[in-house]
Amino acid sequence: MNKIAFIGAGQLALMTLPHAHRLGLLTVTVDTKTAPAHQLSHEQVIGDIQSIEVFHELLKIEGLTHVTLDIEHVSLDGLRLLESAGLKVSPSSRTLEVIQDKLKQRHRLQELGIPGPAFRAASVQEIDPEEAAVVKLPTGGYDGRGVWPLKKGPLPAHFCGSLLVEEEISIDKELAILIARNEAGQLAFYDPVEMLFDERLNLMATLFAPARIEDDLALQMKSYAQTIIEGLDYTGILAVEFFLTTEGALLVNEVAPRPHNSGHHTQVAADTDQFEQHLRAVMNWPLGESSLKSYAYTFNLLGESTGRCELANHQQWLGEPALFYQWYGKQESRPGRKLGHVTLTRPLNLDSKTALEQLISQKGRLDSCLKIQIQ
Amino acid sequence: MNKIAFIGAGQLALMTLPHAHRLGLLTVTVDTKTAPAHQLSHEQVIGDIQSIEVFHELLKIEGLTHVTLDIEHVSLDGLRLLESAGLKVSPSSRTLEVIQDKLKQRHRLQELGIPGPAFRAASVQEIDPEEAAVVKLPTGGYDGRGVWPLKKGPLPAHFCGSLLVEEEISIDKELAILIARNEAGQLAFYDPVEMLFDERLNLMATLFAPARIEDDLALQMKSYAQTIIEGLDYTGILAVEFFLTTEGALLVNEVAPRPHNSGHHTQVAADTDQFEQHLRAVMNWPLGESSLKSYAYTFNLLGESTGRCELANHQQWLGEPALFYQWYGKQESRPGRKLGHVTLTRPLNLDSKTALEQLISQKGRLDSCLKIQIQ
Repeated sequence: MNKIAFIGAGQLALMTLPHAHRLGLLTVTVDTKTAPAHQLSHEQVIGDIQSIEVFHELLKIEGLTHVTLDIEHVSLDGLRLLESAGLKVSPSSRTLEVIQDKLKQRHRLQELGIPGPAFRAASVQEIDPEEAAVVKLPTGGYDGRGVWPLKKGPLPAHFCGSLLVEEEISIDKELAILIARNEAGQLAFYDPVEMLFDERLNLMATLFAPARIEDDLALQMKSYAQTIIEGLDYTGILAVEFFLTTEGALLVNEVAPRPHNSGHHTQVAADTDQFEQHLRAVMNWPLGESSLKSYAYTFNLLGESTGRCELANHQQWLGEPALFYQWYGKQESRPGRKLGHVTLTRPLNLDSKTALEQLISQKGRLDSCLKIQIQ
Repeated sequence: MNKIAFIGAGQLALMTLPHAHRLGLLTVTVDTKTAPAHQLSHEQVIGDIQSIEVFHELLKIEGLTHVTLDIEHVSLDGLRLLESAGLKVSPSSRTLEVIQDKLKQRHRLQELGIPGPAFRAASVQEIDPEEAAVVKLPTGGYDGRGVWPLKKGPLPAHFCGSLLVEEEISIDKELAILIARNEAGQLAFYDPVEMLFDERLNLMATLFAPARIEDDLALQMKSYAQTIIEGLDYTGILAVEFFLTTEGALLVNEVAPRPHNSGHHTQVAADTDQFEQHLRAVMNWPLGESSLKSYAYTFNLLGESTGRCELANHQQWLGEPALFYQWYGKQESRPGRKLGHVTLTRPLNLDSKTALEQLISQKGRLDSCLKIQIQ
């Protein structure tokens, strides 16, 4: 029987593991002790996925055949160790090396002819604080911590070494597309999605699918996504994030080498969700049907304070029509931590304006009861 | 946070646990060591669910609030112990006591005015071997072992004590319906299904949904199901199995107090599957949308010999259109053991004759590759 290990046992592995069981795989999760997905795997390896030791431990697991990732910040030497032992690692260390480093990623995308913001590598000393630019840490940034628009003020102290400097983009829409590819080269595309601005949270927080864009723009996104996934010789599911500028240019922001926030709606709005699709791609199995079956509107449930957390108001949520939610099983809340998500749907026979109005109105009505209790 | 225990950690618990995680419950499984659903729960209690000891162990689990069943053959004294400790047990020991014993169940259904085969209690000595009757063990029968049609020959030796004797029925169709009820009294109905005769296996093996019956018969089934679930003061999901006789009479065969083989298709052919619905009912949460979204055709993957088993041919299965399969993660195969199931679907805009012809033809094509490897 095939046995697959997930490096990282966070919510993405958590949502993938039930599919692995259903499809007949044995499973291993690798992460620190409290990671939530350990609860759903057959075997657990406890340790720090950025250190090499845990990969040596993983090699001792009997019958392991495949390895994949729940997060891109893992030890490349660790992945190379697994590959040299004959394990099938998806995405491969060679592909991940390019994606992990945002500067290498930009160069590679440029080589592939993919449009992006003008960029350069620079040290702190080479950056003019008055530049209309966004400065990024090439590695290690996560959830916004490694991104600094200069208009916000002087660079924080943790920005040092060789930095990625990108021209500031005037953004009309943030778009994303998911694409999957298996080793045989089969591709599966999901429909483009758009991110909506949440006025209450003052951030790009809610996903709407399908994106309200012209067909030729959607085709262009798919074409870029295909060029990227083939150019990187990537196997698994890949999220490609785009900016549509106010001048109408389509630029690639970055790629994420795993299931992604921009695909959570596929749990309920597609026959094959992004998690099952990722597994199929990683196992080199035929990919599944990915077309969108409904309008979807997805937002995260974010921690507001620190403490042990639990979900409240199951009653009210489950009584809502067309509401699907996923709790991530994390024991601790922290401000801004992703604790779960909610997807609202509407039938595709509505026009998109009506559907979106209904979805926004439903969310508005729900905001008061979408509460997480902190102890 | 609510914590729910599953007495029995077989495939039904296995298919329910991912929903429990997603909806934000903590979980406990109770069963012998190799039971497959232990892999997906937060905590495990190892032991024999027909003995009282394991229930004493379960009472030591901190924070446990709810208890439900994966199988009806559990210790009633054990359930009473949990109830007297203040746990919410669904279905309750009082309800299960009636269902566990087929003779008590028949009497109760009769009191509720539900039509069934003529029946009586009898000892072996009181049974005429020439009778046109089916003899059943009132308790402990499972997967056909406790049912003996007298036309097959003399009663096996394990038929002793007080037996249930039912008139032999001339069956036109075997039908079933799933119904759920929560403590608040809310009901959810699934569409009636029919069992099809499999000529290769020579048994009623394949489910087709929705059943090809007249609307008034479907309404009658729903009405009986409602009378039963309310009459038994039952909470959770209940499967009601019917015979439609060659004379056109609708008789209740028996009820199953848990998710059931006749509802596996809801994993892919309904918004809320029977497993999530059962959880919602047991937690006294609002019930979910249960209408059928496609034609469904479901059959079990049965063990053919004894040995360690694994799934083969993922490639071929996953390449099939409209095929969904569920592997149960059992380590050992035995002849006739349920190791998984497959559901094929077709859109409801086809007429049922065409849909069924296509489904039978697809299954015929698949039979050669639906193989399980035995080591």
